Amino acid sequence: MSSPATAPPTIGVFDSGFGGLTVLRALVAHMPRARFAFLGDTARLPYGSKSRRTIARYAVESAQFLVREQGAEFLVIACNTASALALDAIQNAVPVPVLGVIEPGAAAAHAASRSGDVLVIATDATVQSHAYAAACHAQGLRAIEKACPLLVPLVEEGWTGSGPAPFTAIGAEQAAAAPLQVAVTAEVIRIYLDELIAEAAALGHRPDTLVLGCTHYPLLRPLIEKAVPLGMKVIDSAEAAAQAAVHLFNGRLSGCPILSTSSVEGVGENSITATEIRCFATDSVEKFERLGSRFLGHPVGTVELVDLGG
Amino acid sequence: MSSPATAPPTIGVFDSGFGGLTVLRALVAHMPRARFAFLGDTARLPYGSKSRRTIARYAVESAQFLVREQGAEFLVIACNTASALALDAIQNAVPVPVLGVIEPGAAAAHAASRSGDVLVIATDATVQSHAYAAACHAQGLRAIEKACPLLVPLVEEGWTGSGPAPFTAIGAEQAAAAPLQVAVTAEVIRIYLDELIAEAAALGHRPDTLVLGCTHYPLLRPLIEKAVPLGMKVIDSAEAAAQAAVHLFNGRLSGCPILSTSSVEGVGENSITATEIRCFATDSVEKFERLGSRFLGHPVGTVELVDLGG
Repeated sequence: MSSPATAPPTIGVFDSGFGGLTVLRALVAHMPRARFAFLGDTARLPYGSKSRRTIARYAVESAQFLVREQGAEFLVIACNTASALALDAIQNAVPVPVLGVIEPGAAAAHAASRSGDVLVIATDATVQSHAYAAACHAQGLRAIEKACPLLVPLVEEGWTGSGPAPFTAIGAEQAAAAPLQVAVTAEVIRIYLDELIAEAAALGHRPDTLVLGCTHYPLLRPLIEKAVPLGMKVIDSAEAAAQAAVHLFNGRLSGCPILSTSSVEGVGENSITATEIRCFATDSVEKFERLGSRFLGHPVGTVELVDLGG
Repeated sequence: MSSPATAPPTIGVFDSGFGGLTVLRALVAHMPRARFAFLGDTARLPYGSKSRRTIARYAVESAQFLVREQGAEFLVIACNTASALALDAIQNAVPVPVLGVIEPGAAAAHAASRSGDVLVIATDATVQSHAYAAACHAQGLRAIEKACPLLVPLVEEGWTGSGPAPFTAIGAEQAAAAPLQVAVTAEVIRIYLDELIAEAAALGHRPDTLVLGCTHYPLLRPLIEKAVPLGMKVIDSAEAAAQAAVHLFNGRLSGCPILSTSSVEGVGENSITATEIRCFATDSVEKFERLGSRFLGHPVGTVELVDLGG
């Protein structure tokens, strides 16, 4: 069935900033033979504090860049805010399949939860959209959402402790935040989760699953896992989106060997170096290059500046 | 000398968000009879993470709106980042006097410091511009600057304890953050200041003055004053800019009674209700209206949405 002569497709990955590099990292681990074009709309971040109208306009311009200028044949919207508020607008604006991160996150929560009650933490705009609650409800789950606006700046400040397990050796100098700083982040997480769990209890919910509804949060996963009650499962929407992308693209690309020939679990850290990744940003290339490696788990290399006119 | 028939001038006040309302608040206290037009470029905030080129373009468009559309005869750039990176560009783009917040802050530090060594805390972009260091150097001071990226989100999350003294009764419901949250903010401030003071000591500096180089920071002033070493003076650049504006405008407007007839110290909370203030935002009017009152110390009323096309 395989057709080695077929060129690998380009998968466009879009985020308002570079947090979506955690989604790209998961995509690369699952599809090491695809080509990737990542755009961070850093000139206009954060989307999380902006209105639906503004977010949709920015996201559509970014999606069009990836499809028209970079030839992306598939798009992954690696931004919870844009997935929540602009997925329809993007799907209407480009002629390629578009996958967000909300539906996969809700589906993974459904697979993980036994009680049917889940918690979601995200940015303010994602929570205000209630997109996770709606997607969870469609899966038969009850969800309570909470905005945690301090977590993104804490991640970007590097007050996160050690990074996710597979890549701690890379960028370890940034990951080695001092104990006082990590204690602050742990305390902020505890305050947010205590408030959320108390709210769930007051409503008679019995949550057993927590969805990380922001692409920055995978870098906090070790601290979050320490803070949740014993037995609560933590769902990473970046990883869930990557798995959903594999299903979507595999069905459409059965002749193209973009997937690992080994099992997905066998795809390790080194495969990322063999993958073609081009990164674009609308501003702050220096910051993207400096901080992005923590999210990608690998140096992002040269980031190309693009002007979307906004 | 006075000419009561002269219409009061409109003073345009510009910020990337609504933090500049702390500057507006200080301006109103000093010039209760002026008219004010405040623009928060909320669709494109935060400027602090963007490049000089982008910041200059946004700031010029905002300044032109205030002068051309609102008839502002003077501009106060109530945004440290724009003052640091775009003051020249704005002054070249509009035909009215333009005052930033950096020079007044440095002048106030010069008046306060005996040792000649000062500390400055600000956003990342303001620090990277070294505009405060340059302005302090021009005053014969030595300055060490530190970026404190977590302080703005902590203020916007409301983890600030009680507000500034004159206005605690207004918006007290937002100001009453729980002790755990305020303790986190106090700890973040302590971490930042300890690092900054250690850096100053390592360089042989003997700082006796701390400049708050961000318009959000006045809301943290009580916590910051508790955290600084005994005897260190805290300079609020919002208040310093308002005092500089009085000097500038008074010299040019000797016939126009915009200043309080009583002493400046006699201008109290109530005078703000008699002042004509129009607030504009490029996005997120709801958030502006909800959070802005904490900064202005008074309800901001209806915020008008404007589209600067960006």
